[in-house]
Amino acid sequence: MSTYRAPLRDMQFVLRELAGVEEIAKLPGYEETTDVLDAILDEASTFATEVLDPINQSGDREGCTWNDGVVTTPKGFKEAYHAFAQAGWIGLPVLPEYGGQGLPQLLLGPTLEMWNGANVGFANGPLLNQGAIEAIELYANDALKQVYVPKLVSGEWSGTMCLTEPQAGSDLAQVRSTATPEGDHYRIKGQKIFITFGEHDMTPNIIHLVLARLPGAPEGTKGISMFIVPKVLVNADGSLGERNDVKCAGIEHKMGINANPTCTLNYGESGNGAIGYLVGEANRGLEYMFVMMNAARFSVGVQGLAIADRAYQHAVEYAKERIQFRDAASRDPKPVAIIKHPDVRRMLLFCKANIEAMRALAYVTAASLDYAHKATDENVRKEHKAFVELMIPVVKGWLTENAQTVCSVALQVFGGMGYVEETGIAQQYRDVRITTIYEGTTGIQALDLIGRKLIRDMGASATKVFKQISKFAKELESSENAEVKALAQPLTDATKALADTSQWIGMNAMGDLRKAFANSVPFLNFFGIVAGGWQLFRGAKIAAEKLAAGENDPYYTAKIQTATFYAHNILTQYAYLQKQIVDGSAGVIAGDDEMFEVERRALATA
Amino acid sequence: MSTYRAPLRDMQFVLRELAGVEEIAKLPGYEETTDVLDAILDEASTFATEVLDPINQSGDREGCTWNDGVVTTPKGFKEAYHAFAQAGWIGLPVLPEYGGQGLPQLLLGPTLEMWNGANVGFANGPLLNQGAIEAIELYANDALKQVYVPKLVSGEWSGTMCLTEPQAGSDLAQVRSTATPEGDHYRIKGQKIFITFGEHDMTPNIIHLVLARLPGAPEGTKGISMFIVPKVLVNADGSLGERNDVKCAGIEHKMGINANPTCTLNYGESGNGAIGYLVGEANRGLEYMFVMMNAARFSVGVQGLAIADRAYQHAVEYAKERIQFRDAASRDPKPVAIIKHPDVRRMLLFCKANIEAMRALAYVTAASLDYAHKATDENVRKEHKAFVELMIPVVKGWLTENAQTVCSVALQVFGGMGYVEETGIAQQYRDVRITTIYEGTTGIQALDLIGRKLIRDMGASATKVFKQISKFAKELESSENAEVKALAQPLTDATKALADTSQWIGMNAMGDLRKAFANSVPFLNFFGIVAGGWQLFRGAKIAAEKLAAGENDPYYTAKIQTATFYAHNILTQYAYLQKQIVDGSAGVIAGDDEMFEVERRALATA
Repeated sequence: MSTYRAPLRDMQFVLRELAGVEEIAKLPGYEETTDVLDAILDEASTFATEVLDPINQSGDREGCTWNDGVVTTPKGFKEAYHAFAQAGWIGLPVLPEYGGQGLPQLLLGPTLEMWNGANVGFANGPLLNQGAIEAIELYANDALKQVYVPKLVSGEWSGTMCLTEPQAGSDLAQVRSTATPEGDHYRIKGQKIFITFGEHDMTPNIIHLVLARLPGAPEGTKGISMFIVPKVLVNADGSLGERNDVKCAGIEHKMGINANPTCTLNYGESGNGAIGYLVGEANRGLEYMFVMMNAARFSVGVQGLAIADRAYQHAVEYAKERIQFRDAASRDPKPVAIIKHPDVRRMLLFCKANIEAMRALAYVTAASLDYAHKATDENVRKEHKAFVELMIPVVKGWLTENAQTVCSVALQVFGGMGYVEETGIAQQYRDVRITTIYEGTTGIQALDLIGRKLIRDMGASATKVFKQISKFAKELESSENAEVKALAQPLTDATKALADTSQWIGMNAMGDLRKAFANSVPFLNFFGIVAGGWQLFRGAKIAAEKLAAGENDPYYTAKIQTATFYAHNILTQYAYLQKQIVDGSAGVIAGDDEMFEVERRALATA
Repeated sequence: MSTYRAPLRDMQFVLRELAGVEEIAKLPGYEETTDVLDAILDEASTFATEVLDPINQSGDREGCTWNDGVVTTPKGFKEAYHAFAQAGWIGLPVLPEYGGQGLPQLLLGPTLEMWNGANVGFANGPLLNQGAIEAIELYANDALKQVYVPKLVSGEWSGTMCLTEPQAGSDLAQVRSTATPEGDHYRIKGQKIFITFGEHDMTPNIIHLVLARLPGAPEGTKGISMFIVPKVLVNADGSLGERNDVKCAGIEHKMGINANPTCTLNYGESGNGAIGYLVGEANRGLEYMFVMMNAARFSVGVQGLAIADRAYQHAVEYAKERIQFRDAASRDPKPVAIIKHPDVRRMLLFCKANIEAMRALAYVTAASLDYAHKATDENVRKEHKAFVELMIPVVKGWLTENAQTVCSVALQVFGGMGYVEETGIAQQYRDVRITTIYEGTTGIQALDLIGRKLIRDMGASATKVFKQISKFAKELESSENAEVKALAQPLTDATKALADTSQWIGMNAMGDLRKAFANSVPFLNFFGIVAGGWQLFRGAKIAAEKLAAGENDPYYTAKIQTATFYAHNILTQYAYLQKQIVDGSAGVIAGDDEMFEVERRALATA
């Protein structure tokens, strides 16, 4: 059976050495960060290991059940949610005035990672809850805030995000749910699908954030408003009143994340509509949603990383125990643990190198989120905001795509035992597959990266990043550690290739947008591979310095070996990706739709 | 819901134009091949579509049940198996003297593909059955042949292959089951796991081919013998007698292929041992198994192709129906079918190009199997045998690895609908995951390719293939079709890179075997990418000739566009793979096992 252990050593290293938590602690409001850091990581690790992990596999097996609108979560989930709330984990980034602890985003990196590594089905509750809290905190009026935020933070109630409709998935412009004004509130009608924890038995009330259209609202994205629609109406004194007209019509039978219900919610099915309250201004719902999306996309990126890490550590355990075949380098015919075999080492290193690059990039991006919000110097804020905007689609898209490959490789280490559900690794493989889909598919992330981030500022923010990486590659050049020095050339080459490819996309966007977008997903992965390598190599450089200074920690040696593997086995993809994008994009858009049908026709002469 | 349609046009093209079915029909015994070809494809397509496909999704959902040693298959499977047998499909490649049709291996390509595309859970029965028939036909004495082969071919009984034991997965040298002589038979004791259709309710008898050790047999691979162990003993008159002592102790709960039971079989649990009959000579069981393995590995490669094709065609259907977002090339704000979007086209083309390359390579390899068996000229037989030996691990390894990526990409086209089981695409994603594991993991295929095929003859067979490809690339050079001409350079470059890399591996194998094997799986994929491109480009060249000759078939235009996509978006990986193998292999084997643990340690100072 699989168990989760938080990668505390690497988390601490990335937080302290790469993401600069000490600097974050100098930002106004974050002064206590370093004082509480160790305690938070230790407590989170304990909570993840002792409370969430034990109900991970059982939650997957049991799943959720629906019965006439009532959804029952797996055994232990209700209790775990209360324990989670009571420990104060919901309020970690929420302002103290609403009952939170007001800690920086940077700390969300490791804590989110631990919840998701230990139990992704459970973690999806707090993840969406966080979005609802943020939406209300940022955009609702004070009265609404006072009613809803404290109880969402305390965990007494929970929140959801209701965006998707059958005809409106990635394309939210197609939202059709309606909101009709009635006194101080609105009447909401429509159907929302794929709503995570849209109905459950963990809290007595559920606060839905719902996108809907007001009468006469403009078509498309500019006519969508955001509403609070509680499952149970709240009386003036804050107590629970009547049931609102929102009903769960069913839950999905999914490939994974079985422990969290994915609900179809019908609003206003049996009357004038469910009662809802407008958040912020009319017709600005999608705009609000986009602001929150950075956090949600970051979170799903980390979710991918977390599941991948769980799969990897399980594969390491298995590879140490499973005995098959003799050692190719030895004359002894006795079979050895498969971790001794080069192919298994390759698979484990592939996982390790990707995971450490992913973690470094995610946490560094989280630190930038904090600077973007809190730096006192406006220029610093602006600079980090630009970096965050650029990196969020990469963190969401690349981390999750990568995570799926890592989980598949980890499963492969198990051989036949990987395919049976008993070992648990199959669950990670099934669970992780959703991460490239929800909160915007990788295709949507890539469109965002190219269309909104790269092209909009004519590549200015991207170019800045490429210059930073090239500058760092020069620093590697002068390392006294031969292995670290050898990282310079691959990073320089890859960064140049990425910069050239970005320019090629920019040039083509001025001509044929379709051609510029044709290989947008490979471009996003390209960006991730280079940016992840950059951060991993920063770690290798620091590790070499520590070793040179006499710190005899195998963690540092391993960091350099991991970076070396990444340089030759992962980063080298640049040579292929550039060719693919530059030479291959025209071919993607050539041809008609009919070409996908021809192979299934009978031969004319037959 | 997903439905399967056989890719008849492409199958016919590959059989006739690439694999040269007309030439195969000149081999002794295969004279009727071309006469029956169309009828067989049409009938197989009808059978796959009308009998197997309708119980594919229901079979997955229902799964198999175990109750005190009795296994029940999903609704309709028993009837389908009888219909399958009655239609003569089991005996397709079996000699007429045993009730078969004696058709070439080449025809197994499309028929196997159709069974597996329509219903992989079902198809696993005949696939293993085929192995059992072949083993008995090739190695057992006449008496055993007469008792078992006709009833296996008629489908009255069914067969299994019992190799794996808990401690002997990939490493069959560790087999511990025992066989003790007793008169004209043996008493078998031991446990076999992961036995496909090891117990079921489709036929009254099941014939197990079992690997076990005789008393005093040498250790390792040279002390394993093969036995026939029927579930029900057969009386002298061929009627069924007493139950043999083999019992199904349970079935696995798997991620996919739920319609076929995967059984734990206990032999001789309650007495002196199950009665078994020696096949061929003592201690040569593994050698026999290896001869049959070519066919089994070929079949699993085709299985991967088949599942990938089903996933792809389903994605095409969905992409034509699903409306989201406006066309980036148009000013019309109306949302369009997602097949219009460049990223979706890229995904569909990725699937199409890979699938057509995979199919071409598989069928061409099957044709070589026929030459290797039946050519009258010994040199021709030898030449094709060498080609087959080289290509089997590639067909098994590359096709199945590729198939998993294709299924994942196809699922991605569905967005959120891909993750719910309702659409059916999730089943392909779960089903296909086994194909890189059973009949030898990709790691085992890669070891075979490098260790047994590449290194053993000092690269002679591989070099021959590279020369053939280079020669063909030169022919492309002189094509009058500009697109086809443009395929020459990428193929030349990729083949040169592959040849250089092969040489690098050969050189290193003389020094450090571990280094030579470190990137064996990437090398196998490299080989597949180039060989698949070669065969796909052969198709493109022929298509161009047909078009030039005035045949106005969109299938040909699409073939050239598909090859062009492959050249730039898939074949270009050579630039990365060569670097990875040559520069990255040392890093794979550097470091100790401890390096995979360090990230989970707490920080010393914390």
